[in-house]
Amino acid sequence: MKTQEIFTVVEDELKILDKNLKSMVGARHPILNAASEHLFSAGGKRLRPALVILVAQQTLKKSSIRPSQRRLAEITEIIHTASLVHDDVIDECITRRGVTTVHSLYNNKIAILAGDFLFAQSSWYLANLDNLNVVKTISKVITDFAEGEVRQGMIQFNSAISMSEYIEKSFYKTASLIAASCQGSAMLSDLDRAQQSQYYIYGKHIGLAFQIIDDILDITGSYKNLGKPTGSDLKNGNLTAPVLFGLIEDIDLQHLIENEFENNIDIEKAITIICNGQGLKKAKDLAEEHIQTAISSLPQQSFHNDNENKSFYALIMIGEYILQQI
Amino acid sequence: MKTQEIFTVVEDELKILDKNLKSMVGARHPILNAASEHLFSAGGKRLRPALVILVAQQTLKKSSIRPSQRRLAEITEIIHTASLVHDDVIDECITRRGVTTVHSLYNNKIAILAGDFLFAQSSWYLANLDNLNVVKTISKVITDFAEGEVRQGMIQFNSAISMSEYIEKSFYKTASLIAASCQGSAMLSDLDRAQQSQYYIYGKHIGLAFQIIDDILDITGSYKNLGKPTGSDLKNGNLTAPVLFGLIEDIDLQHLIENEFENNIDIEKAITIICNGQGLKKAKDLAEEHIQTAISSLPQQSFHNDNENKSFYALIMIGEYILQQI
Repeated sequence: MKTQEIFTVVEDELKILDKNLKSMVGARHPILNAASEHLFSAGGKRLRPALVILVAQQTLKKSSIRPSQRRLAEITEIIHTASLVHDDVIDECITRRGVTTVHSLYNNKIAILAGDFLFAQSSWYLANLDNLNVVKTISKVITDFAEGEVRQGMIQFNSAISMSEYIEKSFYKTASLIAASCQGSAMLSDLDRAQQSQYYIYGKHIGLAFQIIDDILDITGSYKNLGKPTGSDLKNGNLTAPVLFGLIEDIDLQHLIENEFENNIDIEKAITIICNGQGLKKAKDLAEEHIQTAISSLPQQSFHNDNENKSFYALIMIGEYILQQI
Repeated sequence: MKTQEIFTVVEDELKILDKNLKSMVGARHPILNAASEHLFSAGGKRLRPALVILVAQQTLKKSSIRPSQRRLAEITEIIHTASLVHDDVIDECITRRGVTTVHSLYNNKIAILAGDFLFAQSSWYLANLDNLNVVKTISKVITDFAEGEVRQGMIQFNSAISMSEYIEKSFYKTASLIAASCQGSAMLSDLDRAQQSQYYIYGKHIGLAFQIIDDILDITGSYKNLGKPTGSDLKNGNLTAPVLFGLIEDIDLQHLIENEFENNIDIEKAITIICNGQGLKKAKDLAEEHIQTAISSLPQQSFHNDNENKSFYALIMIGEYILQQI
């Protein structure tokens, strides 16, 4: 299976998802409606719903997934989008996924409310899944977001933070939702507790790898790939894996960070230092380690049909897909 | 029963609530913890939890309420507080309940996250009530908040808005949570659907009356009573019942509003016009109408014991208590 083929396995389901997302968040108020429309039209990778769908197909041993799992895929994308809207206000981002952010297009007020509205809608749809364990699993994630963002805020420009603090923050910010979504999908397939945990661990490490690669792209990426300027996170003092590895090698990088990139060219200097060192390679190695752990967590399979086979390999190939982003 | 006695009926429960609130929102992060501590120490009327407790005592026909109802009382106060934190960012309030708001004490970022965190905590505790109908009922409320705030934002300084638009907005912003909380408490007492609705309607009209009185206090109140400067809402272009009644009588008021109080003394002029007219009286009459509707919605009672009697009269006297705030 080639990485491009992963999304063909879930293609039909993702088309339904795109259509449903717009009608699900269709607020009674035109401004909220416009903000939501704007958000979901911008696209995005749809990684989270794809994982929910693949886990569903794999655990049900067939391609047609349950309506509750389709809904869970939609809910995870709504929660993710809500968190982005509030993040963009907090980090004062002007563009995201290549389009203007809600708070730039409207104002902070509309963005805060649009985020609240999306979080609330997700809670409401979640409750209507009629599965209390899934509600509990997913609602824990939203508390993790706030925790992750606050942690990130508290360690800005702090060159003394450890790799494990970075990983912990990345878990709260990114991996927690992906892990809980994979577990939720397994729950809705009525898997036992032990198997649910295997999908949780899979999602957690896929999520961490995804965040590390995203952080590498902040240093190396083009505006086209990221939809936001290179070095945006670094400029905000958000010290990620490639930066932390770079800090071990070069004292000048530490000075630039501690002086919060006071001169205009400092951010470019810092990026050059990181790119010339081993930081990017080491960060990619770290992402690969997490992908290995994710794959090894997947329950051992004996295949009964082709669909089962396809979704299993797609879950494995997601790791390759993530690495290929750089 | 005198109005002061209402809170003695629920006094012991409210003490437990105050203690629990602080430990419930005890975030793992010191900054979120400090923000939450700050919020709940500021007090407030605790009207919402008091209503949940009274409905519980009344419907269970005894004073000791169920642990799930105690938890619901706490959840409603957390949701209410979360909405205040985001409202204060949106409306740029400097003080609330007489103390500095979270975004003034820290910054917008911490306030947005603290609000998200509290909303998320409430969803999590809600899921752990293990009653899907209550989860559905309460989670609808949070979508109503965003709807209400957006509606309020869209009609700022618009002197053409009707009384019914004001009431609709007040429902979303205030009455929806109080109604759902009363209904939720009745649900947790295992009341039938028709009786649940009676408590919902009671809560809805108590909530509307409460909002109208709060809006009168914005015009007449002292800094001491409100914990925020007189005319704060009016200055933001939030046109409430006394203002809308005032607009019918006086064309000058309309000019002051449409010019968005361009001169420093304009807000004082507007308040004087409203106070000299019939607006305050008419607004109070409107609040009284809603209290009558609330009381008439309460199920007819045959009393078996004193506790039952006390909580029933307390539910009636809450209306008097609300009116006495002015």
